[in-house]
Amino acid sequence: MKLRNKEECRLDLVSLGEVMLRLDPGDMRISTAREFRASEGGGEYNVARGLRQTFGLKTAVVTALSDNPIGRLIESLMSQGGVDLEHVRWVKYDGIGRTVRNGLNFTERGFGVRAALGCSDRGNTAVSQLKPGEINWDEIFGAQGARWFHTGGIFCGLSETTPAVAEEAMKAAKKSGVTVSYDLNYRPSLWQAGGGKSKAQQVNRALMPYVDVLLGNEEDFTAALGYEVAGADENLAHLEHADFQAMMKKVKTEFPNVAVVAVTLRTAKSASRNDWGAMAFADGAIYEAPARKDLEIYDRVGGGDSFASGLIYGLLEGREIAWAV
Amino acid sequence: MKLRNKEECRLDLVSLGEVMLRLDPGDMRISTAREFRASEGGGEYNVARGLRQTFGLKTAVVTALSDNPIGRLIESLMSQGGVDLEHVRWVKYDGIGRTVRNGLNFTERGFGVRAALGCSDRGNTAVSQLKPGEINWDEIFGAQGARWFHTGGIFCGLSETTPAVAEEAMKAAKKSGVTVSYDLNYRPSLWQAGGGKSKAQQVNRALMPYVDVLLGNEEDFTAALGYEVAGADENLAHLEHADFQAMMKKVKTEFPNVAVVAVTLRTAKSASRNDWGAMAFADGAIYEAPARKDLEIYDRVGGGDSFASGLIYGLLEGREIAWAV
Amino acid sequence: MKLRNKEECRLDLVSLGEVMLRLDPGDMRISTAREFRASEGGGEYNVARGLRQTFGLKTAVVTALSDNPIGRLIESLMSQGGVDLEHVRWVKYDGIGRTVRNGLNFTERGFGVRAALGCSDRGNTAVSQLKPGEINWDEIFGAQGARWFHTGGIFCGLSETTPAVAEEAMKAAKKSGVTVSYDLNYRPSLWQAGGGKSKAQQVNRALMPYVDVLLGNEEDFTAALGYEVAGADENLAHLEHADFQAMMKKVKTEFPNVAVVAVTLRTAKSASRNDWGAMAFADGAIYEAPARKDLEIYDRVGGGDSFASGLIYGLLEGREIAWAV
Amino acid sequence: MKLRNKEECRLDLVSLGEVMLRLDPGDMRISTAREFRASEGGGEYNVARGLRQTFGLKTAVVTALSDNPIGRLIESLMSQGGVDLEHVRWVKYDGIGRTVRNGLNFTERGFGVRAALGCSDRGNTAVSQLKPGEINWDEIFGAQGARWFHTGGIFCGLSETTPAVAEEAMKAAKKSGVTVSYDLNYRPSLWQAGGGKSKAQQVNRALMPYVDVLLGNEEDFTAALGYEVAGADENLAHLEHADFQAMMKKVKTEFPNVAVVAVTLRTAKSASRNDWGAMAFADGAIYEAPARKDLEIYDRVGGGDSFASGLIYGLLEGREIAWAV
Amino acid sequence: MKLRNKEECRLDLVSLGEVMLRLDPGDMRISTAREFRASEGGGEYNVARGLRQTFGLKTAVVTALSDNPIGRLIESLMSQGGVDLEHVRWVKYDGIGRTVRNGLNFTERGFGVRAALGCSDRGNTAVSQLKPGEINWDEIFGAQGARWFHTGGIFCGLSETTPAVAEEAMKAAKKSGVTVSYDLNYRPSLWQAGGGKSKAQQVNRALMPYVDVLLGNEEDFTAALGYEVAGADENLAHLEHADFQAMMKKVKTEFPNVAVVAVTLRTAKSASRNDWGAMAFADGAIYEAPARKDLEIYDRVGGGDSFASGLIYGLLEGREIAWAV
Amino acid sequence: MKLRNKEECRLDLVSLGEVMLRLDPGDMRISTAREFRASEGGGEYNVARGLRQTFGLKTAVVTALSDNPIGRLIESLMSQGGVDLEHVRWVKYDGIGRTVRNGLNFTERGFGVRAALGCSDRGNTAVSQLKPGEINWDEIFGAQGARWFHTGGIFCGLSETTPAVAEEAMKAAKKSGVTVSYDLNYRPSLWQAGGGKSKAQQVNRALMPYVDVLLGNEEDFTAALGYEVAGADENLAHLEHADFQAMMKKVKTEFPNVAVVAVTLRTAKSASRNDWGAMAFADGAIYEAPARKDLEIYDRVGGGDSFASGLIYGLLEGREIAWAV
Repeated sequence: MKLRNKEECRLDLVSLGEVMLRLDPGDMRISTAREFRASEGGGEYNVARGLRQTFGLKTAVVTALSDNPIGRLIESLMSQGGVDLEHVRWVKYDGIGRTVRNGLNFTERGFGVRAALGCSDRGNTAVSQLKPGEINWDEIFGAQGARWFHTGGIFCGLSETTPAVAEEAMKAAKKSGVTVSYDLNYRPSLWQAGGGKSKAQQVNRALMPYVDVLLGNEEDFTAALGYEVAGADENLAHLEHADFQAMMKKVKTEFPNVAVVAVTLRTAKSASRNDWGAMAFADGAIYEAPARKDLEIYDRVGGGDSFASGLIYGLLEGREIAWAV
Repeated sequence: MKLRNKEECRLDLVSLGEVMLRLDPGDMRISTAREFRASEGGGEYNVARGLRQTFGLKTAVVTALSDNPIGRLIESLMSQGGVDLEHVRWVKYDGIGRTVRNGLNFTERGFGVRAALGCSDRGNTAVSQLKPGEINWDEIFGAQGARWFHTGGIFCGLSETTPAVAEEAMKAAKKSGVTVSYDLNYRPSLWQAGGGKSKAQQVNRALMPYVDVLLGNEEDFTAALGYEVAGADENLAHLEHADFQAMMKKVKTEFPNVAVVAVTLRTAKSASRNDWGAMAFADGAIYEAPARKDLEIYDRVGGGDSFASGLIYGLLEGREIAWAV
Repeated sequence: MKLRNKEECRLDLVSLGEVMLRLDPGDMRISTAREFRASEGGGEYNVARGLRQTFGLKTAVVTALSDNPIGRLIESLMSQGGVDLEHVRWVKYDGIGRTVRNGLNFTERGFGVRAALGCSDRGNTAVSQLKPGEINWDEIFGAQGARWFHTGGIFCGLSETTPAVAEEAMKAAKKSGVTVSYDLNYRPSLWQAGGGKSKAQQVNRALMPYVDVLLGNEEDFTAALGYEVAGADENLAHLEHADFQAMMKKVKTEFPNVAVVAVTLRTAKSASRNDWGAMAFADGAIYEAPARKDLEIYDRVGGGDSFASGLIYGLLEGREIAWAV
Repeated sequence: MKLRNKEECRLDLVSLGEVMLRLDPGDMRISTAREFRASEGGGEYNVARGLRQTFGLKTAVVTALSDNPIGRLIESLMSQGGVDLEHVRWVKYDGIGRTVRNGLNFTERGFGVRAALGCSDRGNTAVSQLKPGEINWDEIFGAQGARWFHTGGIFCGLSETTPAVAEEAMKAAKKSGVTVSYDLNYRPSLWQAGGGKSKAQQVNRALMPYVDVLLGNEEDFTAALGYEVAGADENLAHLEHADFQAMMKKVKTEFPNVAVVAVTLRTAKSASRNDWGAMAFADGAIYEAPARKDLEIYDRVGGGDSFASGLIYGLLEGREIAWAV
Repeated sequence: MKLRNKEECRLDLVSLGEVMLRLDPGDMRISTAREFRASEGGGEYNVARGLRQTFGLKTAVVTALSDNPIGRLIESLMSQGGVDLEHVRWVKYDGIGRTVRNGLNFTERGFGVRAALGCSDRGNTAVSQLKPGEINWDEIFGAQGARWFHTGGIFCGLSETTPAVAEEAMKAAKKSGVTVSYDLNYRPSLWQAGGGKSKAQQVNRALMPYVDVLLGNEEDFTAALGYEVAGADENLAHLEHADFQAMMKKVKTEFPNVAVVAVTLRTAKSASRNDWGAMAFADGAIYEAPARKDLEIYDRVGGGDSFASGLIYGLLEGREIAWAV
Repeated sequence: MKLRNKEECRLDLVSLGEVMLRLDPGDMRISTAREFRASEGGGEYNVARGLRQTFGLKTAVVTALSDNPIGRLIESLMSQGGVDLEHVRWVKYDGIGRTVRNGLNFTERGFGVRAALGCSDRGNTAVSQLKPGEINWDEIFGAQGARWFHTGGIFCGLSETTPAVAEEAMKAAKKSGVTVSYDLNYRPSLWQAGGGKSKAQQVNRALMPYVDVLLGNEEDFTAALGYEVAGADENLAHLEHADFQAMMKKVKTEFPNVAVVAVTLRTAKSASRNDWGAMAFADGAIYEAPARKDLEIYDRVGGGDSFASGLIYGLLEGREIAWAV
């Protein structure tokens, strides 16, 4: 996997995805809270923000927002996050949210036996209406220059048009020698009205030929790509490492362009205590992160995105896969 | 105007309208805030809540909500408000808000030269999809009994179907001897995509024959009903009282069933200081509230609804119009 | 144990007890905090609230409050909780709290080695002055209908008159076929000025003949009913299950009307980590809940009431005892 | 009026009165708030605190508190206020507040047309049970030394025993040459159950012979001392200055020991805007403070106590009466 | 006054000055608060932020920060403000703040008769140690391009070295055709240890030859430049407009390069109500802003900077002076 | 070790050290927080506060503060803490913090894998400028009387002059029979600019002849006193108890005046879970506290100071060393 030089690129990474306003009731439940803390979030965007805040890289997000105070609040939050906003597409608001909106995500963190709970309200958002031809990818990847492009299965599940935008972006990335990563991130709610798992698999598989680094959690490879994993029980909690490794090899065999396949492994003992781990398959070998048992969890949301940003950071810095994982 | 007896009715008033989750950034601006306080609100609902909280009457709201944590938060807030929720219609959520949602309303209060600012996000809400036949009005007005029914121009602007629901309710109310009030509440954003002012006027005028008590602010009678007021300048701020009275008489002439026409009069000297007043026309006479100059304003949102609940309270208690105003 | 039909009853459960304003300093200590979060609570009431909020049943509380802003705040909180307030008795306030008051409960949650700490201020409350003849139990249980009645040892310890009110309610319940549950909930502070444990035992034992379902924690059966448990050490922490079972059988032998005896088993390893369990004795058999080890605790207050509401829910729904426990 | 030397006294002022925990809902109403800010307050104590915080003098409070976390919170707040707590009497708590309690005061500040609203809950407090002989006044005034003693009509209205405590303290003060001030502070709720205004007047008049500086607002002289003021209408708002002066002279004639009579004059145009003024009568002359029109009010509670602390500061520092007022 | 074209410049404005962490106790006093809200601020920076946030221009700040969590918090706040941070100079922290620090500014807003109160803690800050040669002005003004450069009397009062940095920047600006503005902003605390007013006047006057737009409030022209204004009384509150105009003409005569002289006029009736106005002298004429009487004030800090950003915006957009004022 | 009688001393303990304003971002990170909670803290002061708050003893702090609102806030916080402030030295502020300041300490608590993080800003503080001759130790220890004096290695690292102040205080303490304790508390940042570890060791060793009770954590004895501990690895985590005991004996041999040597033993499994323990060497024997495994940690800051205050309490009360530890 050959990366572009830092010197010739204005940006280290460009991410394509939805950015929602997250409203968090703190220690309370959504349905009984009276105050909410606002932040911004979105699977693909989080990777760009993590690379900027934790690792100091220059990153940008490509997304669309409707131009109302909610959108401007999301802009303020992203601005605070340090991610470049030059390529955010602003869409005129209709005053009531019938034709275009911004996504909202009410999320409570969970505690002990009370699991985390999310409620996203992201229908008809500006970004879900994004269509090919609206973003000048050649300007971004070519004229300005970027080393890495990241998107994933959440963005591609937003609407009928977003997979085509992702494909357009990936093709432009490949043309400019930009490395492409994809996080499968299967969200049943996004697909249920439009074909379910089989549609998700069809969409994701069509994009695989452009992908250099493929990420997912235990369930994603089955749900979002259709791989059968031997020995997987209902909730996949006890999947054997050997079976995982066999599956990762199958991915590599079917899509030889994929240089790295990485998977996060999480066991939630309670909402407040998780075991975390991760594995990657690259160069014909398996690299496993140290198992972290009984991690105290403050807020689990975005844990997979954090892993992605860490892995990508390692690869962007030219570190060994083992270090990156 | 003859009212039903209190004894034969389970409820004093039933209101039909949308209830949104209001998110309020306190002293901050929406677009730079990081915390929001949650409450519930909606023009028609506010009247039922005011009658319950301030005046101790038994009131109910007829609305629809999508069954997700946001909807349950609105339920919790309405429950706190003491309004009867038996006739709330719960609609299954699709997980992402593509087909059905709950309304949100980000509102900042303004201060001094900074005007109040609202951003409603109410497209595709459950209540906007309400259709005739879905609410058992005969049960509400007949079997259980109610003395008063209130709805208004916000509900009727939500969608193509809501005016028919209002009409259905009004007809049932009339059948059971229930008094009907209607607050014009013209909101341009609701109508702009579906015919604008002329459509609003057509919808509102079609409902006038069922209305006993008609309410509005200075602009509503012109924008939402089409009455030309002599001497009105652009922003209607300097409308003479005499011209107002002439207009109210015209309303009464055209719709003789309307027993009371009432109008609120507000001059915003700044977001923090307003002059307030009100007038009513009934029994051929004009009744004017004492002019309140330089009222200190904490939050102006819902001021018209407060007036409506006060007026209706006076009438429900059998007070003089002059007292009620 | 035969339950009344849901169809013939307006309410699933009616609870009789005190509702206090809880003031919670969050992560701080009461004596050094500067801000408090307000909620409502009371052992018997909590059961009604849990059945309403967690399980969606229709429940009501019978209590008395003094009519001042503190009482109205408690009303607002109960209203938010969804519990029916029609039978709350409002007592005129004297302006200073000499003759009648509302109960307050300052409670800090504890953390790690710092135990939870409560300070209740409930002398001379309206509810402690409740007397037989003031509540129309026949209206509640008969005319309106209820399936279950719940009260307990906290209410009966409030004053000299409350045990008679509980007895009056239980008799009325029995007359209308309403199932009766009683949570022993021994609180030393309530009894110390009026006879201590022996008085508590006398009061509680006198009510046992009306009880269908009896609940308590490890200490309650000894302190509040006077049963000696073989093998119990000072703090009862290591009580053997077998001894417990023997004691539950003794209860059943003495009061054969008691259909179900249930006990909660808690070991507090720290304020933040507890082992929880529960057992019930019914139909001559012991049913034990799965032992939950090392539960992360956010706030332990009301844990016993939660157990009661869960158990009662199971029984009201016609589930097996084993499921209910 | 001759004052003791600063050098021979450990304290500048000692105040005798109740200190309550104030719970303030911020911009919200008590009955709908969910969070309260805690502070401490009490008419007599406020004077000691103002002299300490605003003017840097050494002051102490004599009061009684029940020893529970609420009392310890009041202690923490007073400690923050810098007032000496050596002479606070701690009384054992009974665990529930039947025999002894600490006073609570829920107060909302009001805004615009919404007046301030208070709800005190101070029945059976430790301080109301204070009896003569329990405080070692000779130690305080004699051995340790103090220049000024302050108490007032709130303390004397707490119970049957508190006037005797005030008298005991005043006598001891006189014996040691300590100046005595008394703020009439008539609170109807304190007196209504025990004789009303006439009892208040009897109690207050009996203490007048010990008083050097007498303070009150417009209503206090009539309600708490029984002086008829010519020209006073119902709410005393338009009392002429000349009539006030006549009344002050009458006080002086009847109680020639009173060296200074001072009265605060407030007109509340709204809860947020007040006109403030004050007058004093001393040495046969009237001294009037500059009238302050349209003061913006954040929180009016304790305004009279602030005036008292300012006046006393001026006198303690040996300033002219005119300056002090 | 000729401005550079927007097309040839990456930035609309570059500001040079200190950015401090502001800690605001909300409605409380600094010395009794227990919570503070953090924001960033600094006279020169505020102009860049206002142009970015209110007017949407591209602006940057040149400053220095010590690299510790406080500096990173200031960075996060500026990032949220949208101001470009590429030219912030980061200086290694010594772990305790002996050799280098970041500036802090505790500020309370005042209310009514309580004036605003600030306490800055800005000794030995990184920016006060800035020296000529450390910033690459030719890169900023030449290679990247900027239309306007702004600095002022606060920056120049920070230390012995900052005036030379300002001069270096102004010379570079002039070389690249960049317009230069200077806000006199006299702060006595900054100058008192190093020569007082006369030193301030010497420093400011030395920079005047490079200034195109000069700003100040009523006092600044006297204190910071040494102009005597006829008719000025002690606090300058009643300065006649004619006298002001005479003074502005004197400035223009002495420094003919100054194209625009602008002054803000504020009368603080209370901390919560101010009269505001402004005047500018340009092209031989006086332009006066509409007098705004009785403005409600939430927070007055930064009012002069807001005026500067508005004026500069008007000029950058090519508007008339009258519009800009 | 012989202690002075309680009767002859106004104070139980006097502490000498810096008191900083602590700003705590709650659950957030310093660099991304927008709100901070204020408290006061400082290693030596914390011991006096703990003895006052937790154990009810009378304690005072000797320190210096600059007289500005930040200093007055620290005063308010200490006043709340109940520590006597009579001997706080107030130094005139210069308005900007160039010549004298108050110390600030931004501290986040950490959570799970995220360690606690502190950033102190304490350069040029008033207390660091304290010089011998400025405090009247004979008044404090002699005339007023104190039983114990405590200071430590943080105070002595503040500047070139503070060790001499500590020595002056210790000599005065010895003269009056006051017991002296010293907490080594090695902070690398304080020493790095002035000689590092070797300077710290020189300073600390020079004070040892006056010390009765010596405290430290695992690292302090090596870093701050220069003792080599056999078997200590890099981070001292696995130091054997036997080696510790050997080292404590060495201390005792070299400084026979030291009656008690005590060390805290902490293993941070995560920021939220620590193992805690402690040992003391006295009378030729080792006393070990029960090992506390897996303590849940809310905030670890000040843990060593808590240990010191507990140990000193035990000794002041005449308890056995074993109990005290």
